[in-house]
Amino acid sequence: MDMQVTFLDRLFDSGLLIDTGVEGLYARSGTFEDVITGFERLIDKFSGETGAEVIRFPPGMNRSYFEGSGYMKNFPQLAGTVHCFCGDDLAHADLIQCMAAGEDWTGGQKASDIVLTPAACYPLYPIVAKRGNLGPSGGLFNIQSYCFRHEPSMDPARMQLFRMREFVRMGKPADVMAFRQEWMEKGKELMAQVALPVDIDVANDPFFGRAGRLMKNNQRDQNLKFELLIPITSVSKPTACMSFNYHQDHFGKTWDLKTVDGETAHTACVGFGLERIALALFHHHGLDPKLWPSEVRDALFG
Amino acid sequence: MDMQVTFLDRLFDSGLLIDTGVEGLYARSGTFEDVITGFERLIDKFSGETGAEVIRFPPGMNRSYFEGSGYMKNFPQLAGTVHCFCGDDLAHADLIQCMAAGEDWTGGQKASDIVLTPAACYPLYPIVAKRGNLGPSGGLFNIQSYCFRHEPSMDPARMQLFRMREFVRMGKPADVMAFRQEWMEKGKELMAQVALPVDIDVANDPFFGRAGRLMKNNQRDQNLKFELLIPITSVSKPTACMSFNYHQDHFGKTWDLKTVDGETAHTACVGFGLERIALALFHHHGLDPKLWPSEVRDALFG
Repeated sequence: MDMQVTFLDRLFDSGLLIDTGVEGLYARSGTFEDVITGFERLIDKFSGETGAEVIRFPPGMNRSYFEGSGYMKNFPQLAGTVHCFCGDDLAHADLIQCMAAGEDWTGGQKASDIVLTPAACYPLYPIVAKRGNLGPSGGLFNIQSYCFRHEPSMDPARMQLFRMREFVRMGKPADVMAFRQEWMEKGKELMAQVALPVDIDVANDPFFGRAGRLMKNNQRDQNLKFELLIPITSVSKPTACMSFNYHQDHFGKTWDLKTVDGETAHTACVGFGLERIALALFHHHGLDPKLWPSEVRDALFG
Repeated sequence: MDMQVTFLDRLFDSGLLIDTGVEGLYARSGTFEDVITGFERLIDKFSGETGAEVIRFPPGMNRSYFEGSGYMKNFPQLAGTVHCFCGDDLAHADLIQCMAAGEDWTGGQKASDIVLTPAACYPLYPIVAKRGNLGPSGGLFNIQSYCFRHEPSMDPARMQLFRMREFVRMGKPADVMAFRQEWMEKGKELMAQVALPVDIDVANDPFFGRAGRLMKNNQRDQNLKFELLIPITSVSKPTACMSFNYHQDHFGKTWDLKTVDGETAHTACVGFGLERIALALFHHHGLDPKLWPSEVRDALFG
């Protein structure tokens, strides 16, 4: 915890992140953004996924797709629904009075059709499923989105609003598993280009509650999730900066995603936590990118 | 309306925007994003605001700052609050049962500390005010944020989630007014570089309800808001693609923003609706940027 607070303070003092008064919600300086831009460019240069369809999502998604995804079953504690005022002049007068009295005025807000996106690939599956079967080469997508996780924390590497970059592969099980396997190698090579020390380990998602324990164990036993870990605010608990996920036919069944042969598609994704990677770079190479090792600067800004 | 639907259909057909099943909520193609990136680069090259502090905000802001801003008094119908599940295993079982039965499961969601950002400059004022007085040259900021407005629409130029780029000036009234005046000229020059036809006109914000009528009239009578208008989905009602706003001492008083002399600071902002500008470019120059006039391509991608 001390290391987390110290690093956060140094990020505030240097102006790279700007305090907004809410844990895990920060504004970013131009320098911080330049590092993210540089790393995204490096991903594109390095990935070799030149045939991927590029899609950029807004930070919210269709609530009915979100409901269909099963997210509230597994991770209700992390979700953010967007609520709005739908009243008339009278209801508005009540709301303003309530607010002026320092009381809770939010009880009258009604859920809109929009939910904050929990992971960049959640809005993708239903969109692709609507297009019909995946075609002979399956699907390959290069996506990015601001994502929300309701987990206020003093650890700068655990933000409530952050950007996730992903490649998503859809198709036959063997193709999808090969994609994930290749990326576990490529992830290490990519991080070596920016001189970051990494480990890869099996992992699980933070499934909710008592029933979630079983889900976590299943996920680990079946090697469905791996993470690329880099020490940022703790050496003993390094931070997941990439993840490599094999969903089997979960999203294929959920959205009726079909291969060209009419089989239920399997899917896998590789995700980059862009803010975490930027923080790893600042932690390992110092707070001023102008002073970073020249090979790191060349990789990011060359 | 017909022109709006037709243009939206063409955007979907070309893949520039991707339908998500919610009006005003679209995914963007790589080509669409390249145009936004190109225009943002042009803004920076052209602006001359080289001394501006660059800040990029996440799509949400501190709810207490939002409450302090007065937004719910003036525009309650447009706001989006972020709500979360805060229950235990039992509450979770109820929620899942509710969802499975197709009932409304969102009533138990509680307001979090985060609200979707309604305009890029709303999170800025309280952050700057905390730093102490503005110093001898006042304040100048180059900011950007995804913003939310709850106004579902078939008009592609009226999105619920969109990016707003701004320059914000803070200081003495004369300096702030001069900044706004200069930008009304610069805005025209900037749009001329990408061959877009513009008009500038006095305008008002969409103040809510009966009391809002007076606010609209006041704002117009005092020339506090101008918009740069470009025809996109209607010739008779062109779309506001930039706005030039003089807030007088509204935010200065609200956040106790002081000039170096201890006076309440005045503020002004110039805003760019980035998606609207991209749509204006697609409308006027065609859906394929490779076929745009060479001077437009040079300005954006050169």
